[in-house]
Amino acid sequence: MSDYTQIKFEKDGPIATITLNRPEKMNAYTRVMMAEIIAALDVTDADDEIRAVIFTGSGDRAFCAGADLTPDDGARPFSSQTEVADLSDDVVRDGGGRLTLRLFQSTKPLISACNGVAVGVGATMQLPMDFRLASDNARYGFVFAKRGIVPEACSSWFLPRLVGPQQALEWCMTGRIFDASEALAGGLIRSVHPQGDLIDAARALAMEIAENTSAVSVAMTRAMLWRLPSEPHPMDAHRIDSRSIYKLSRSKDAAEGIASFLEKRPPQFPDRVSQDMPDFYPWWTEPVYE
Amino acid sequence: MSDYTQIKFEKDGPIATITLNRPEKMNAYTRVMMAEIIAALDVTDADDEIRAVIFTGSGDRAFCAGADLTPDDGARPFSSQTEVADLSDDVVRDGGGRLTLRLFQSTKPLISACNGVAVGVGATMQLPMDFRLASDNARYGFVFAKRGIVPEACSSWFLPRLVGPQQALEWCMTGRIFDASEALAGGLIRSVHPQGDLIDAARALAMEIAENTSAVSVAMTRAMLWRLPSEPHPMDAHRIDSRSIYKLSRSKDAAEGIASFLEKRPPQFPDRVSQDMPDFYPWWTEPVYE
Amino acid sequence: MSDYTQIKFEKDGPIATITLNRPEKMNAYTRVMMAEIIAALDVTDADDEIRAVIFTGSGDRAFCAGADLTPDDGARPFSSQTEVADLSDDVVRDGGGRLTLRLFQSTKPLISACNGVAVGVGATMQLPMDFRLASDNARYGFVFAKRGIVPEACSSWFLPRLVGPQQALEWCMTGRIFDASEALAGGLIRSVHPQGDLIDAARALAMEIAENTSAVSVAMTRAMLWRLPSEPHPMDAHRIDSRSIYKLSRSKDAAEGIASFLEKRPPQFPDRVSQDMPDFYPWWTEPVYE
Repeated sequence: MSDYTQIKFEKDGPIATITLNRPEKMNAYTRVMMAEIIAALDVTDADDEIRAVIFTGSGDRAFCAGADLTPDDGARPFSSQTEVADLSDDVVRDGGGRLTLRLFQSTKPLISACNGVAVGVGATMQLPMDFRLASDNARYGFVFAKRGIVPEACSSWFLPRLVGPQQALEWCMTGRIFDASEALAGGLIRSVHPQGDLIDAARALAMEIAENTSAVSVAMTRAMLWRLPSEPHPMDAHRIDSRSIYKLSRSKDAAEGIASFLEKRPPQFPDRVSQDMPDFYPWWTEPVYE
Repeated sequence: MSDYTQIKFEKDGPIATITLNRPEKMNAYTRVMMAEIIAALDVTDADDEIRAVIFTGSGDRAFCAGADLTPDDGARPFSSQTEVADLSDDVVRDGGGRLTLRLFQSTKPLISACNGVAVGVGATMQLPMDFRLASDNARYGFVFAKRGIVPEACSSWFLPRLVGPQQALEWCMTGRIFDASEALAGGLIRSVHPQGDLIDAARALAMEIAENTSAVSVAMTRAMLWRLPSEPHPMDAHRIDSRSIYKLSRSKDAAEGIASFLEKRPPQFPDRVSQDMPDFYPWWTEPVYE
Repeated sequence: MSDYTQIKFEKDGPIATITLNRPEKMNAYTRVMMAEIIAALDVTDADDEIRAVIFTGSGDRAFCAGADLTPDDGARPFSSQTEVADLSDDVVRDGGGRLTLRLFQSTKPLISACNGVAVGVGATMQLPMDFRLASDNARYGFVFAKRGIVPEACSSWFLPRLVGPQQALEWCMTGRIFDASEALAGGLIRSVHPQGDLIDAARALAMEIAENTSAVSVAMTRAMLWRLPSEPHPMDAHRIDSRSIYKLSRSKDAAEGIASFLEKRPPQFPDRVSQDMPDFYPWWTEPVYE
């Protein structure tokens, strides 16, 4: 973990915290930062002790000011450096989307603690997270149309789901910078906190999950709630939840869940995401880029 | 109707009321209750006099406290009793989903009058209903992750549609019990009422529909609004609503609808759901469990 | 443009305004009005100077009182005049849907300035617009079930997306007329204004887009945010936004977007929707009626 150069990775009990760590650049996003976050997510998925992951920014000004427009290596902002003939070539893949698709696959709950400016990919990378908390000085901007480009990082898929088409269109068609209260009213974020209380609020939510629930249940819930609403009919959910209830009702976690409830005591769930997911998980085939 | 043992079924003019009726068990859900509600829905669909169906719980404490964890017959909670080799076997089907899929197919508007605790399947069975009203002492819980299982009854399909992904994930990942005001703020329920006024509020909504609208129009509207948004393009709705307008604009109900409007008098619609739906209804094939 | 008989078409800088113009009939909708709006949209799409389109109604009472139930030519309301044997015949197509499907394809932002009564197709034609603003005397009604017909103009596809299933079902199953405050609380409209300020508010939003953003970016954003959420997986968005970022990051607009940002000055974007859209646009095939 000590090899990270643009993020910090910390583990404290059941909570991992990933801090975007280029405060001198307002934590602007680079290919290196992308690769380090993805590497950190492989760690949080593999470590059964970790029950939730908090994302925040270093310093008190920014969560992430977007793609680095003036990178140290002189690279072209937004896109690959190489002209390619074939658009299907892997080099054409947007770097924001590489990250959000990885976040989408997380087996652990993801919590954003947005501590300041979140613009461009700094805003869109938060969309596949489960919960978005913000400090009262947070500011958001889906500024792509102001820069002559388009909403990236799969945000055209995520943002209308989260806030509805009318609000998503307004933020993306104006490119406006807006504050935490507009973000809260629009449904983008879950809650606003004084900056000094933000991390504690994120940790409280993480601990509510960690102390009360089965990790296997939460990993299944995450996949089901993000994926099954895209299916055309509730029968598609019925097929998955019927198999899940059948399998998990025979698990050690279900026995502990019922026993702790009937005995009115906190649960101690033994099952692990690394080895106790139902055998049909994942029930889907992750699509490939083409 | 007098054969029901775990529900009450009452009919009063155009309104049917189904009362979950195991007050000594906080109306906990069983296979018997499931079968009785499904039988009652066959009655409400077949009876042209019935224009809306209200669901409530017996007593003043609970709507439904969830699956009966300590059933009288000693059966295993949550799932079938028989170990099966083949997960596609019908015995594996979740009992909550059997009910919610039947509710999904109702031709009559469904109104929940949630008069107290609604936990587990007591909460998820309300999701395919059209309207959720609650008393001020109502409490909800999508508690599955606390019990070591997963959201059932197709709730992973319904809940994010109703309240958005962020709120759905919070309720399902924490398993938290929450009150009527949190349910209202989150968009789960339509309105909150003093417990003594709850049924009257539900009946007022039912009567607004019964007195002003065509039963055929409402049955078509129910199918269209629940099903067509899952189609990939508005053209899919255009195909259905074009045929519907063509057929129904030539119906007795449309003639009465225009006449009553122009004459500024209440309508008296003659057409019946049992025999006057357009000939292409249903336009879909209901998927089978596999 | 002077040939329009039931609408007014005006152009003022980057803003086009389409006024439904039958004030003696509360701007009731006819086949002629439909054809004129569609013709006007062909103009707004083709004219690169036009950056946004405002829709409003003539007079101070109505935006549009719905389909003309007593048309001057004695035609049957709601539907085609000819009995047809084959429902797939083009004559069966709903006239509201012909319009909303055309609005759906607009490359320019569409803003409704709803200045009074908006009933039936007067309400549903606003749904594929990007932004709905209303005067404080506006009233809406999805009255189809009161007339013995069904929600038309693809509103069963649009309305639940905009306001969620529970609110959409209540408005469509009761057929209730409701005011601007209920429309705002339910999420149908973006903002309410005194009638005298309504057009200025709509123009302010249009100018915020026109002055700050790339027209090509906005046209792409419109297609992406309305269409890509219907895809089953965020990968589908990643394929489109990756290609878009690759292409547009090499455009004149992207160069100007970054330069104007770094130089802290207003942008002057040179690219045009008529000729500078990425070569893979449109990336979809528009479905045909069948």
